[in-house]
Amino acid sequence: MKKNQLLFIQDFPKPQDLGEERVLIYDQVLIKKSLSFKKWQSQFDKKYAVTAGESLKAVEHFPKHISKIIDLCQNTSSRKLTLVVVGGGSVGDFGGFVASILKRGVGLMHIPSTWLSALDSAHGGKTALNVGKAKNQIGTFYPAGKTILVKSLLMSQPESRAFEGFGELLKIAWLQGGTLWKDLSSEKEVDGNMLWRYLPRAIDGKLKIVAQDPEEKSGLRHILNFGHTVGHILESYHQLPHGIAINYGMDFALKWSLERKIMSPAEFEKIQSTAIAVYLLSPVRDELFSAKAPVLKDFRQLLLSDKKKTSSTKVRFVFLKSPGKPVIQEVSVDDILVEICRQFEEDTYE
Amino acid sequence: MKKNQLLFIQDFPKPQDLGEERVLIYDQVLIKKSLSFKKWQSQFDKKYAVTAGESLKAVEHFPKHISKIIDLCQNTSSRKLTLVVVGGGSVGDFGGFVASILKRGVGLMHIPSTWLSALDSAHGGKTALNVGKAKNQIGTFYPAGKTILVKSLLMSQPESRAFEGFGELLKIAWLQGGTLWKDLSSEKEVDGNMLWRYLPRAIDGKLKIVAQDPEEKSGLRHILNFGHTVGHILESYHQLPHGIAINYGMDFALKWSLERKIMSPAEFEKIQSTAIAVYLLSPVRDELFSAKAPVLKDFRQLLLSDKKKTSSTKVRFVFLKSPGKPVIQEVSVDDILVEICRQFEEDTYE
Repeated sequence: MKKNQLLFIQDFPKPQDLGEERVLIYDQVLIKKSLSFKKWQSQFDKKYAVTAGESLKAVEHFPKHISKIIDLCQNTSSRKLTLVVVGGGSVGDFGGFVASILKRGVGLMHIPSTWLSALDSAHGGKTALNVGKAKNQIGTFYPAGKTILVKSLLMSQPESRAFEGFGELLKIAWLQGGTLWKDLSSEKEVDGNMLWRYLPRAIDGKLKIVAQDPEEKSGLRHILNFGHTVGHILESYHQLPHGIAINYGMDFALKWSLERKIMSPAEFEKIQSTAIAVYLLSPVRDELFSAKAPVLKDFRQLLLSDKKKTSSTKVRFVFLKSPGKPVIQEVSVDDILVEICRQFEEDTYE
Repeated sequence: MKKNQLLFIQDFPKPQDLGEERVLIYDQVLIKKSLSFKKWQSQFDKKYAVTAGESLKAVEHFPKHISKIIDLCQNTSSRKLTLVVVGGGSVGDFGGFVASILKRGVGLMHIPSTWLSALDSAHGGKTALNVGKAKNQIGTFYPAGKTILVKSLLMSQPESRAFEGFGELLKIAWLQGGTLWKDLSSEKEVDGNMLWRYLPRAIDGKLKIVAQDPEEKSGLRHILNFGHTVGHILESYHQLPHGIAINYGMDFALKWSLERKIMSPAEFEKIQSTAIAVYLLSPVRDELFSAKAPVLKDFRQLLLSDKKKTSSTKVRFVFLKSPGKPVIQEVSVDDILVEICRQFEEDTYE
């Protein structure tokens, strides 16, 4: 894998430092949300504004986008070209995919604008588009040459967005254990300043896992899917923000780890008793699951179209024995549905 | 670059030897053209027929194709999946691109059905789609895990198709020089049997060049574009078959090499006097070029959208000093147009 350079800075970098020939791809909402972004982007001659969200990643819209981007790149040398991608997860997935296939690959720089992308999706090189209802069915492994974390941009988000990014930080801390989890478990409040402080360690933790298996060949990278199998169903089915859905997915995985006796009751209690565990719980959780046949049928279909299937009806599910000790087990799609029903009943009748 | 396994066999391989879970992507014309293909393909459960040609590579049609291919791949494990791609250049470019981005990359096997693809495009890992009128604007580097050359399939083409593939063999011989060119220059007739005999050496010659610069970073691979700069214009503008257009493009490059005194008159005469050089000449050549302003304007636009531009109006053009000694020089788009006019006048008035 290419070496990805990480930069933590207070304010936007000078455009001329971002490569010889630059095309900016950015989430148009930032123009309204950040005055400093609005000023900064005006220095780019070539730019393409997109509307963030799953629709941006829909393959049906891709021909229109790529055609406009190629028009923008007329009279630039593909060897000198860098796409500077500013936005959250969907914008990064889209922009990274474009960079990876445009003229068979041009320079790529990520400037994530959300905590979720700053902590997770801007790192590790995954790019993706959706095909129909199924997410991330096509894509590439294409790490950015440089990823720039701009504090003023990240801090300009409402504090409530920190909650969405927090789950990915928690995930890395649970997968890694050690001092990262120890420090995090003693935190009392989730906010932007806290996430900014943990950002370098969280990214480092993720990149260490990615480096062992950059293109998901050996399966080692698969532990990063902790919370994602069920998280993705909830995200698709209930149109939840990714970060929120993953929090519920991790909560589900922890409870299943206990049920399957992979995690001890003592360990489970210890995790649940930390101040920050409260961020995973939600009064609406029992509305997300259901034991009704039509809902389960849809869940089943979503699970079957998930690309981490090992065979027709098996998936590799990531459990947790204890912080630092993820456990991958092959389960059937029906095992997951049965557990969804069990947790639903437990929530409803406890 | 992944190691690409090459197999030269007389007849179609057993489907079960082509990977655990197989999806066949094939040129539907082969059903009519080859009885043995028709019988062979009936052994595949999962298959997707395409119509070969540039339209297959049009990005506007891509969402429809990928959606159907993903439906076919339901209930298969992406880790075990191999796309078996049978067809000529456009089918290979398309199928290779699909394999490279489907679930971020699945297994790929090429079985080229035309001489042109058997000699050239099935090797070296380039995949591509077109965007609007501009060819190969998006794509990936994704070498097949295995490329199988099936003699009976290749020989089932009409003899006239051999001419289209011949140019790429000649190109490799000119780039490599030595005994390959020496042997080829003493050939009297271009036909399928002759191409089959030279196939291993031609592929080996190409792969040696590719290995020095698999992703076109250093520029060494660029010599494979000999004949292609002007060839691509003629192909687009006159809707010529690729192989035919490249032959004209090489003829153009040889004449320009002489005009710029890169090739000596003696060397030029020696090449022109070989029996096989006659295959590059054509009575319609002077109809392809033109000194008229509207045609030149279109040529200019096509040159500018070519992805090998070094800067806004410069291209790296491949000349030949002598067989085995290609020379890359940076020229302007206008230099090419001036030379097109010069060769047009020379053809018309000589």
